[in-house]
Amino acid sequence: MSDLRPSTGEFALIDWIRRREPERPIDSWTRVGIGDDCAILGVGEGTGAGCDLLITTDMLMDGRHFRLEQDGPEAVGYKAMAVNLSDIAAMAGSPRAAVVAVALPRHSAVEIARGLHAGLRAMADRFAVDLVGGDTNAWDGPLVITVGVLGHATVRGAVLRSGARPGDTILVTGPLGGSLSSGRHLRPEPRIAEALAIHRMAPIHAMIDLSDGLSSDLGHILAESGGLGAILDAEAIPVHPDAHEQGRRDGSSALDHALNDGEDFELCLTVAPEDAERLLTEPPAPAVLYRIGEVTETPGLFLRSSDGGSTPVEPKGFDHLRAGSE
Amino acid sequence: MSDLRPSTGEFALIDWIRRREPERPIDSWTRVGIGDDCAILGVGEGTGAGCDLLITTDMLMDGRHFRLEQDGPEAVGYKAMAVNLSDIAAMAGSPRAAVVAVALPRHSAVEIARGLHAGLRAMADRFAVDLVGGDTNAWDGPLVITVGVLGHATVRGAVLRSGARPGDTILVTGPLGGSLSSGRHLRPEPRIAEALAIHRMAPIHAMIDLSDGLSSDLGHILAESGGLGAILDAEAIPVHPDAHEQGRRDGSSALDHALNDGEDFELCLTVAPEDAERLLTEPPAPAVLYRIGEVTETPGLFLRSSDGGSTPVEPKGFDHLRAGSE
Repeated sequence: MSDLRPSTGEFALIDWIRRREPERPIDSWTRVGIGDDCAILGVGEGTGAGCDLLITTDMLMDGRHFRLEQDGPEAVGYKAMAVNLSDIAAMAGSPRAAVVAVALPRHSAVEIARGLHAGLRAMADRFAVDLVGGDTNAWDGPLVITVGVLGHATVRGAVLRSGARPGDTILVTGPLGGSLSSGRHLRPEPRIAEALAIHRMAPIHAMIDLSDGLSSDLGHILAESGGLGAILDAEAIPVHPDAHEQGRRDGSSALDHALNDGEDFELCLTVAPEDAERLLTEPPAPAVLYRIGEVTETPGLFLRSSDGGSTPVEPKGFDHLRAGSE
Repeated sequence: MSDLRPSTGEFALIDWIRRREPERPIDSWTRVGIGDDCAILGVGEGTGAGCDLLITTDMLMDGRHFRLEQDGPEAVGYKAMAVNLSDIAAMAGSPRAAVVAVALPRHSAVEIARGLHAGLRAMADRFAVDLVGGDTNAWDGPLVITVGVLGHATVRGAVLRSGARPGDTILVTGPLGGSLSSGRHLRPEPRIAEALAIHRMAPIHAMIDLSDGLSSDLGHILAESGGLGAILDAEAIPVHPDAHEQGRRDGSSALDHALNDGEDFELCLTVAPEDAERLLTEPPAPAVLYRIGEVTETPGLFLRSSDGGSTPVEPKGFDHLRAGSE
């Protein structure tokens, strides 16, 4: 559930859907609906038994998010569970249960299902997530898998995209770029323990997982936080070796890949500057943190180079409706 | 989540998955996992804030559960929401929130998405269900839509498939058969109010929604209730006019269609015989109820004709892995 993007077909569509949601009934569970990494439901509200439930869902399709023939079903199951857990991490939540629906290519439906299950379980086991149900279908089309994950917020509360404040320090949890070309996108590391540890040490103002690319995903935080801006320090952005490798191959800069490639599944978060100092001085295990810039009152995303000059950054991340159509 | 079937590829697969589920952690929310119409989660367990959460998911694919070109996206959205609500009804639950993931054919992604949304909302509005999130993708493949619905049980508790007892009366909430050929399968009526009204008047022992066909779905109740059997009265089974029409066209009997066609989305339930008398004498609005037979200690499903003779019934309902492969 990380597919918002400004000024594109997909964003316009989701905005259209958001505007069409009717007024919620008085006993609605919904605290946060469409447009964050997870929805937040006040389950049992009005019964005296409230619980901040998180729910997220992501669909992966053969040829778009994986290549079944090349990657194999186990890797697909692993990734399908991981990207959903990453959405729970982006709220500083704990995952608890998952449901899985699949459209299996008929020619080897059972074999693929078993492989998927092995991958799903391998990832779910690491976070004690129960697999509680699903829907199994076969057809003549390519493999499609949808995972839905339920979790809950901690007593510190869920972290939204919308809480960034001017002056906040922007942090990321790992090096970025090149994950698609290297195959690293198949083995995302959901930063659940990291998010919980950070949020325990200092209140996180806003957070998102980097699924579409830093320039786009940070853009969501800034837009959802009331139209803020950000200045990123070019030399501070942690560039993954895969981004260097990819840059060498296609002649573009490694930094461009770090800014715009999708599917890193690291977290991007904003905290008060004094909290950032504490977090960077003594990062709470297992979190690794990089300071990449700061939130500004003035809208727009800018890249500051070591000589002090700054250039605007266009969001160039992944668009789920447009990608592949060029 | 109504895809169990004895002695088939799909059942074997789901059984294989069930057997591979690891021992649950001590703080697991899971009360009922894989194998019923919904999973049941004890949300907030151990925090003193328990709530019986229901979760279900169903995936619909073009060419399998609908024909986009013929039916249009609005009908698809309507059905996708309805079949999930029907799973909530089958637990005697109340639906609250839904998430939706779609793989949209790229050629007219936004137009299809808007149509889907109109259909989803039309059905969701009838039951005050919030649409809280989703995942939007486009590709070169056919339309796939996955809906997940959250709900909760009432103070009477959720109704499982596994609670049938020998001597129970078997009831259904409407006439059966022929829904696929007539197009009625696109407009299922989730029996949510009906299930709640019945469960309020008399405890329902076991319940399932008829998605795969009476012979198969009742078979799930009998198998899950410890290997019981049932005798159905041939003349008591309510046969839908569509089943008669379909029988005339293909030369088979209308009763065969009522027994074996899928996608009626009526409820099949078992109650104590004295409760059945009360329910049939004064059906609680808006429920309509038909007595079709009784649960027996002896395993096996039998059809009793008016002359007293009885013949075994083979489950011939829909198999999601095998169907279409013959």
